[in-house]
Amino acid sequence: MKATAFMEPGKVEIHEVAKPEIQLSGDAIIKIVRACVCGSDLWFFRGINKMPSGSRVGHEAIGIVEEVGSEVTNVKPGDFVIVPFTHGCGHCAACLAGFDGDCMDVPENVNNGYQAEYLRYVNANWGLVPVPGKPSDYSDDMLNNLLTLADVMATGYHAAATAEVKEGDTVVVMGDGAVGLCGVIASKLRGAKRIIAMSRHEDRQKLAKEFGATDIVAERGDDAVKKVLEMTNGGADAVLECVGNELAVETAVKVGRPGAVIGRVGIPQTPTMNTNDLFWRNTGLRGGIAAVTTHDNAILLDAVLNGKINPGKVFTETFDLDHIEDAYEAMDQRTAIKSLLKVSEG
Amino acid sequence: MKATAFMEPGKVEIHEVAKPEIQLSGDAIIKIVRACVCGSDLWFFRGINKMPSGSRVGHEAIGIVEEVGSEVTNVKPGDFVIVPFTHGCGHCAACLAGFDGDCMDVPENVNNGYQAEYLRYVNANWGLVPVPGKPSDYSDDMLNNLLTLADVMATGYHAAATAEVKEGDTVVVMGDGAVGLCGVIASKLRGAKRIIAMSRHEDRQKLAKEFGATDIVAERGDDAVKKVLEMTNGGADAVLECVGNELAVETAVKVGRPGAVIGRVGIPQTPTMNTNDLFWRNTGLRGGIAAVTTHDNAILLDAVLNGKINPGKVFTETFDLDHIEDAYEAMDQRTAIKSLLKVSEG
Repeated sequence: MKATAFMEPGKVEIHEVAKPEIQLSGDAIIKIVRACVCGSDLWFFRGINKMPSGSRVGHEAIGIVEEVGSEVTNVKPGDFVIVPFTHGCGHCAACLAGFDGDCMDVPENVNNGYQAEYLRYVNANWGLVPVPGKPSDYSDDMLNNLLTLADVMATGYHAAATAEVKEGDTVVVMGDGAVGLCGVIASKLRGAKRIIAMSRHEDRQKLAKEFGATDIVAERGDDAVKKVLEMTNGGADAVLECVGNELAVETAVKVGRPGAVIGRVGIPQTPTMNTNDLFWRNTGLRGGIAAVTTHDNAILLDAVLNGKINPGKVFTETFDLDHIEDAYEAMDQRTAIKSLLKVSEG
Repeated sequence: MKATAFMEPGKVEIHEVAKPEIQLSGDAIIKIVRACVCGSDLWFFRGINKMPSGSRVGHEAIGIVEEVGSEVTNVKPGDFVIVPFTHGCGHCAACLAGFDGDCMDVPENVNNGYQAEYLRYVNANWGLVPVPGKPSDYSDDMLNNLLTLADVMATGYHAAATAEVKEGDTVVVMGDGAVGLCGVIASKLRGAKRIIAMSRHEDRQKLAKEFGATDIVAERGDDAVKKVLEMTNGGADAVLECVGNELAVETAVKVGRPGAVIGRVGIPQTPTMNTNDLFWRNTGLRGGIAAVTTHDNAILLDAVLNGKINPGKVFTETFDLDHIEDAYEAMDQRTAIKSLLKVSEG
């Protein structure tokens, strides 16, 4: 089968490799229908994170269950599923508390590799999210929406959930990548009244507004802080941090009112921060790896199937596996907000 | 009038000084009935924090309104009031959001000095908390309870509120000082099912149990972490951090389950921390200066007056102003959990 391998910064290739097989009783083998490239994939593509040459990559997909291990009863061959990047067991303290992204019972260091024709998924019994019907029952746009539930929309929602966005709130969303844009959708879904998207790119500003942003702030750093504090009379109720670098985190802390909560999903690029600044303003810092299965089952799958949200619009370019290098380059060059990979019909 | 002055580390004195006067239209002059010594007063008493010699000190009291500025309408001369250490205006973004400890409209750098016969209180209109009746209507024990609402009980409650303690939770309380003990009370008041108090001192363990602690852990550091994780099957739902030093904060992070929220009220003694550790476990970090007026009016005053909570038990020694040095020393030497000052009959 075809699978994407990272070779060196700036270079990914399609390799012909063995189809994966069931190894553990909780595994499932999935025939991939659609996959995509994540903003976090750019970290190794750009050489910021080291990764061994030949590593299999990709961690977002929808597909058809082809085979299951002996203990998997919640899904069966032929089922259409969302394939989260997380692998929740459903019964550990993390999963029970609704944080399956931190599952304490993942049986091995999960080897991803969803940018391929097939994948092996561990903890399939609880982790996979079944979708009614089969792929051919859905429009292209709806398949794109469903694909976002494997990571990007669930991650944007996690930012809003951990920032504790509630009815009537004023929210600032840091980051206009696909996750930040999904954060705008999530804020609206949770009832935010005012959503301020921090964005400097016209195409993303436009999509942010379509998704529910009421205001756009193009400034950065202290200029952005000043503008938001003026617009909000002292700061936002909640801040979604969907970037992860130091400037974005610092700005996030400053644009909240006293007592505001920051929901972080941007993977932090500096290990420490001045937490006294948080203390003296009662600023909350929450967030982390998204709880994909939890959010999908609790709210997101329904919202997508009922047409309440259309996160699939973050896919602005489409590729097949043979053009994986182009898919990465489109995101690296910012010509695509997010690159979709059409893999099979299911 | 008599007022306490900090002279040098280890030395406080009573000085004869001028009685305070109304200076701003939002001021009130309060005749103090009871005051007390705070754990945070030990910082200058022990020389950890620098403070100019001769500074007036103390920030917790109950008393009688003697005079008010022209704009004060919520209280009038003769009213019995709790005198918070905070000075909420009631109308800024912080106060409106329920974080009056971060009020953005305090007219000046407030000079405390509640360990005295009289005090001047700014932002009296909203900040002061009226108590029905007069001091002589209440028992000694009830006056002690009311006095805790000026800081220590409100601060313990703030830890529990920002840690988002809810019905059925398992809670860890770091710190067995008066604030930590009030954190135990607050956790029980909010419906926690299991309350694990971290305490090494027998008198405090006993009081913690009386206040609602279900378990005591006397270990510290990694031993404490190991024990709590075993007891809780993966960590507590909420952690109250009522110490502030690095070891306590580190332990607090480790004893929570993934997604747990830490409510900090211990003033942080190290400015930075590794927040990546928070991210990878979805651990929330909240808390800061207590919202005294908010918590008192929302829940604490009723709970005290109805006999639901008895936080006044943290006062284990009583002094008069002339023995202020003894009051400090009792807390410094840990012979008192908290030192009460009987100042007047009101």
